[in-house]
Amino acid sequence: MPRRLVVVGGDAAGMSAASTAKRALGDALEVLVLERQPWTSYSACGIPYWVAGDVASLDDLVARTPEEHRANGIDVRTGSTATELDLDAGKVVARTPEGTQTFGYDELLLATGAEPIRPDVPGAQARGIHGVQTLADGRRVLDALGGDAKRVVIVGAGYIGIEMAEACVRRGLETVVVGKHPTPMPTVDGDLGDLIAEEMRSDGIDVRSSVTVTGFEDDLDGQVRAVVTDHGTIEADVVILGTGVRGRTELAAGAGLPLGIKGALPVDDRGRVDEDRHVWAAGDCVESRHRITGRATYVPLGTHANKQGWVVGRNLAGFDVTFPGVLGTAMTKVVTLEIARTGLGEREAADAGFDPLSVRIDATTSAGYMPNARSMTMKVVADRLTRRLLGAQIVGREGAAVRIDSFALALWNEMTVDELMMTDLGYAPPFASVWDPVQQVARAAVSKLGPRA
Amino acid sequence: MPRRLVVVGGDAAGMSAASTAKRALGDALEVLVLERQPWTSYSACGIPYWVAGDVASLDDLVARTPEEHRANGIDVRTGSTATELDLDAGKVVARTPEGTQTFGYDELLLATGAEPIRPDVPGAQARGIHGVQTLADGRRVLDALGGDAKRVVIVGAGYIGIEMAEACVRRGLETVVVGKHPTPMPTVDGDLGDLIAEEMRSDGIDVRSSVTVTGFEDDLDGQVRAVVTDHGTIEADVVILGTGVRGRTELAAGAGLPLGIKGALPVDDRGRVDEDRHVWAAGDCVESRHRITGRATYVPLGTHANKQGWVVGRNLAGFDVTFPGVLGTAMTKVVTLEIARTGLGEREAADAGFDPLSVRIDATTSAGYMPNARSMTMKVVADRLTRRLLGAQIVGREGAAVRIDSFALALWNEMTVDELMMTDLGYAPPFASVWDPVQQVARAAVSKLGPRA
Repeated sequence: MPRRLVVVGGDAAGMSAASTAKRALGDALEVLVLERQPWTSYSACGIPYWVAGDVASLDDLVARTPEEHRANGIDVRTGSTATELDLDAGKVVARTPEGTQTFGYDELLLATGAEPIRPDVPGAQARGIHGVQTLADGRRVLDALGGDAKRVVIVGAGYIGIEMAEACVRRGLETVVVGKHPTPMPTVDGDLGDLIAEEMRSDGIDVRSSVTVTGFEDDLDGQVRAVVTDHGTIEADVVILGTGVRGRTELAAGAGLPLGIKGALPVDDRGRVDEDRHVWAAGDCVESRHRITGRATYVPLGTHANKQGWVVGRNLAGFDVTFPGVLGTAMTKVVTLEIARTGLGEREAADAGFDPLSVRIDATTSAGYMPNARSMTMKVVADRLTRRLLGAQIVGREGAAVRIDSFALALWNEMTVDELMMTDLGYAPPFASVWDPVQQVARAAVSKLGPRA
Repeated sequence: MPRRLVVVGGDAAGMSAASTAKRALGDALEVLVLERQPWTSYSACGIPYWVAGDVASLDDLVARTPEEHRANGIDVRTGSTATELDLDAGKVVARTPEGTQTFGYDELLLATGAEPIRPDVPGAQARGIHGVQTLADGRRVLDALGGDAKRVVIVGAGYIGIEMAEACVRRGLETVVVGKHPTPMPTVDGDLGDLIAEEMRSDGIDVRSSVTVTGFEDDLDGQVRAVVTDHGTIEADVVILGTGVRGRTELAAGAGLPLGIKGALPVDDRGRVDEDRHVWAAGDCVESRHRITGRATYVPLGTHANKQGWVVGRNLAGFDVTFPGVLGTAMTKVVTLEIARTGLGEREAADAGFDPLSVRIDATTSAGYMPNARSMTMKVVADRLTRRLLGAQIVGREGAAVRIDSFALALWNEMTVDELMMTDLGYAPPFASVWDPVQQVARAAVSKLGPRA
């Protein structure tokens, strides 16, 4: 008799695991997937570009439909919400289109994703306040913006906040972004954050920093009309929340599983939550290990979800693979400004016990004399004692952000700035200056550190 | 009394060393630079873009003029050709605008660069056959193309060959590229070379592969009129040589210094040629160590020249730094096709004693659903035994080539494809797919290798 895997959640992590395990085991494994929504394997990260009009339709964001997964032998049940787990008995209870059903399993994968954090302030349940996490959210935002909405207030100036700000301003809406930190994008240091604020303002976005939202006002219909802050009230036809997410782990908590950072499930590096009871987890509902600090962290991102799902799938298939942790690499853009970061910022580095030095340069994306040269600012953080690179940040024009990968790989391999400076990166005038910008900033750090002891 | 450094050659390596040492030592070091031409610190790599019209003038390619170097206390003598070395006496003889002069030194740096290899066939000295190595060469090519030239034949289909082909075809010239290998760009494998040939043809470039040049025909004025090959005679108004370069080391050889690959000088990793006699060398006239094969190699490239010059400069200043070797990373483009490579190709890997496996994928430069997604082909070579990455190659549209840096850093750190597949590279829809292309191809290699033993 085949073993049975039940997967709760049919997006990146869940379907990666399901597909990987099924491909390896074939008829020896039955795979059942319970998914609340009508879609599987979709790109939530693409929603801002759908709202902006870059992506024509919801279908474009779906990498693989339930039908396609079914054709691969995976029993996908959409519109099915798991409501209860019995980990000792190996059973999941779910509300399905056919009513409440109970499914037994040999292996259970929790891939329930993340959910937007709603500010805990009066009025937060008003109509017209939208999170941006699922395709259904995206459709609701599009509907809201498509009417006679004139003014959008975005609460939160992180990734989702600025991506949605771009989408709204490109749609011709009055766009206000309210952030509680002194600069937008708090995952980059304030000096680079200032450049981002400047860009957003020049794009026509009304950026309000160091502002705390204290409530929302609605009208007689329960429709949001204003965002109330410690710096005054801001009228709004639509409110979009970019206030972060937490693990969607009510189901797991209900079964007594311990929760970690932001409600995420602690897992080992093979993706196991509870080895004895055959419980696995992956994706936006799990913690990761930060490779530089060695501590647990929470980085909900599609790229990790896919890899974690693959890891669980391979392990379910009898191989032994591990998820090696994260560096906090992330990138985004606002209109024509690209933003990227990896590793530790100045304060994170100090908090982690390093003695950080930071240095910043202005550079270009190709040889300065080429017509396609675009400006960018690069910053690195290094440890004074070991001269190790600890983190890097980039803000710049087209072609800037992708260079974060060089820093990410340098961090991954625990390189010193001295070593990074002398590596063999690609050079030709259309693509880089003769000292590659990555190496220019490493060299600036070497120079600031002084000769090695 | 200050020590005296004499530098022969005032381009990237020579001026980097001179500037670095002078900055560190100040009045304790006299620096004299002998340069044949009127220019210092210029980008030879930029010449094709000057010829194409992307770069307005010769001056744009000069990073620092002789006057600027002099303002930093460096005694630059342009129009001065070193003709003889007396290494035992510590003297250089040079032909200068003031006549023949002899300069004593405490330290000597040979930074004499490279020179185009002229095919050893009848007629190769005809007028109208141009190398592309110095700014003077660039000016001669521009003059030649600016007249009533209609048809250019480029001999050699490597970097210079295809960059000059782009320049010529963009100038509206009939452009023929004759290469002796089966595909253009012999530093990438033939399957990717086929894609390059296809692109060049679609750009209107007449690509002739597996063709050997056997001579040149000139007219009564000694002006070249045709290129003779083993596949027929090709009429030409102008001929451009892209047949590679060799170290310009006649001077060193005349002093009895041993030459290595392509006439380049063997140096240790601090840049020393002869420690006892205080002779150093850097740039396009030296050999490098290949980090993967461990063997000597010859990779004349501005980016290495700058670093090698910096290394010599720091060592002259009393610090102890080393040039850690090269991977053979290189990139270029032809019209809208970007090309990049690093490490070993299939045959190089086999020649070096590895058991190579190669795998190729088609991918996009951003999430496939984004309007800015551009196609690219990526190939990696890995060792079957150790699963180490050995090399990578990319051919694709805008945004493709810069990704070679991720492979270069993976090679630098001797990563396996398994490890590369799971690193934390940047992800967001405008910049990458959710499995970054670099990781897609690593994953394809992992899959082809099968589970680890």
